[in-house]
Amino acid sequence: MAGPVRASEEGLIARYFAPLAGPGADGLRDDAATLTPSPGHDLVLTTDAIVAGVHYFPDDPPASIARKALGVNLSDIAAKGAVPRGFLLTLALPDDWTEDWLAGFSSGLGAAAAEASCPLLGGDTVRSGGPALIGVTLMGEVPAGAIVRRNTARIGDRICVTGTIGDAALGLRLRLEPDASWAGGLDPALRAVLADRYLHPRPRLAAAPAVRRHATASMDVSDGLAGDLAKMLGAGRSARIDVAAVPLSEAARRACAAEPGLIEAVLTGGDDYEILCTVAPEAFEAFRTEAEAAGVPLTAIGTVTAGDAPPCFAMTDGTTHVFVAGAFSHF
Amino acid sequence: MAGPVRASEEGLIARYFAPLAGPGADGLRDDAATLTPSPGHDLVLTTDAIVAGVHYFPDDPPASIARKALGVNLSDIAAKGAVPRGFLLTLALPDDWTEDWLAGFSSGLGAAAAEASCPLLGGDTVRSGGPALIGVTLMGEVPAGAIVRRNTARIGDRICVTGTIGDAALGLRLRLEPDASWAGGLDPALRAVLADRYLHPRPRLAAAPAVRRHATASMDVSDGLAGDLAKMLGAGRSARIDVAAVPLSEAARRACAAEPGLIEAVLTGGDDYEILCTVAPEAFEAFRTEAEAAGVPLTAIGTVTAGDAPPCFAMTDGTTHVFVAGAFSHF
Repeated sequence: MAGPVRASEEGLIARYFAPLAGPGADGLRDDAATLTPSPGHDLVLTTDAIVAGVHYFPDDPPASIARKALGVNLSDIAAKGAVPRGFLLTLALPDDWTEDWLAGFSSGLGAAAAEASCPLLGGDTVRSGGPALIGVTLMGEVPAGAIVRRNTARIGDRICVTGTIGDAALGLRLRLEPDASWAGGLDPALRAVLADRYLHPRPRLAAAPAVRRHATASMDVSDGLAGDLAKMLGAGRSARIDVAAVPLSEAARRACAAEPGLIEAVLTGGDDYEILCTVAPEAFEAFRTEAEAAGVPLTAIGTVTAGDAPPCFAMTDGTTHVFVAGAFSHF
Repeated sequence: MAGPVRASEEGLIARYFAPLAGPGADGLRDDAATLTPSPGHDLVLTTDAIVAGVHYFPDDPPASIARKALGVNLSDIAAKGAVPRGFLLTLALPDDWTEDWLAGFSSGLGAAAAEASCPLLGGDTVRSGGPALIGVTLMGEVPAGAIVRRNTARIGDRICVTGTIGDAALGLRLRLEPDASWAGGLDPALRAVLADRYLHPRPRLAAAPAVRRHATASMDVSDGLAGDLAKMLGAGRSARIDVAAVPLSEAARRACAAEPGLIEAVLTGGDDYEILCTVAPEAFEAFRTEAEAAGVPLTAIGTVTAGDAPPCFAMTDGTTHVFVAGAFSHF
């Protein structure tokens, strides 16, 4: 039986990935790339992989998969207050990969990379022997010493998030249960908002300069607000969160109105890719003004408190709630 | 049925990987690390992944797998004339991973990283949904502009290799066919040499300064000498290789004496992780002296010629040979 015609690894790289190569990548003809931070800057490095059937649906559009693989890494860079400089790609393909898939993937990757001014610098393509895995290592830069760390919040700081929380988690639920009763009141446009938030992370790169200037600690929300907040606080710090202040999209508000229990999915679901950060109370207004001037809504949702208890969520019904296994874990 | 007790991803990182973390990694408590090249230096970036059942045997010792994952990347950095600075790890684990495996893996990784002065800076741990995949992104540095590229050989240059060629390919054959007739004359120590060369790449970091000073083009031999040579030459350049000059270990010499056809495996098999490079004829002796002073044997095996033909190998029997599909491909 004649299988599909397959190009060599070199042929695939030349056709699909060399057009995405940036300066220092030598057209992807070498085994290594060069990168030099701007004078007076540190490089900021992060790596995240996504796996078919674990982090995305195998039948998602390949351009969307590529956008997610890059986006989850750009989101980490933005949360650190950094500007992207370039990335390396590890592409582990299943045995049934097709050139059509690869063409869609590289096209989506190129578009997302161009939007973020973050060129491809190199990579490796291998057989996965199982599902596809897409690994990205992303390099950004910050002025020397200016990276915003995760475990550096101060007691009394206000806790903020960009954008809205929970849309991606609801989008995933809707994907798994399209006929869920809570979704009955959502028109197609609102359903599409939720589906899109799950499929396409929107890394908050525009907020990075404001985060760098004002945030005392920062991370992105990838594994759910409740669990990631606990990770950000670390030992000796806790938090009180006013759930009524957590910013929800119109779609999420309607979903929670139809089924109030969904607020737990909003607070613990993953894939938000918003920035969660802390700021001194007196700096909050300036921070919010700068973020919004950059097109990124910023909302205060609570306060850092002393102690080792898990963050306490004041619910809208007057009860308080603690999420013990707060984070959705892909692992 | 009670499964094995599994720690959270954070618990695994704290136990097995945080002890390997270098400066800038913030104890692996953050989603990003910082790295700044030495003044006047460029960072050199490379990424290579290895997959169970594709690039190594699933039952290889986990410490050996870790050493290979790091070693194949260190080898790229050495071939570019660079000094390692740190690495990021993507660990995609199969569903049947065990803590014992992870303990062995992190122990081997830590030892190899310490030998190379190349600390862990960050990483990501995911479920692979199939075989294990270990991806490493390695950062090294060279004086600004001094990276030795792959496609920059000049016609008339001498072609050199470090160490010996073909041992890993024979080690792999011996692993697959322990009773092969050609291996009958090899005593246990020589068999062990071949097996070890397959299992444990020895990246030629010590040769990097000499490569940087003298080589006109350079890459590491990972997919077989014949194919990698063709890749290094690129368009407009070919080569004549004197097979009698290709450096063989005692074990490989005996194997080829017992079965002369094995020379093809020597020349086209993969996993050598030696440096293949070119040098101006008048600079060869100085290059060799410096490499050997650093403990790395360097041998001239041929000459860069003009033209687009594949490299021509002058065999010891007086015939010439061209390897059309010269490289072993993992893909």
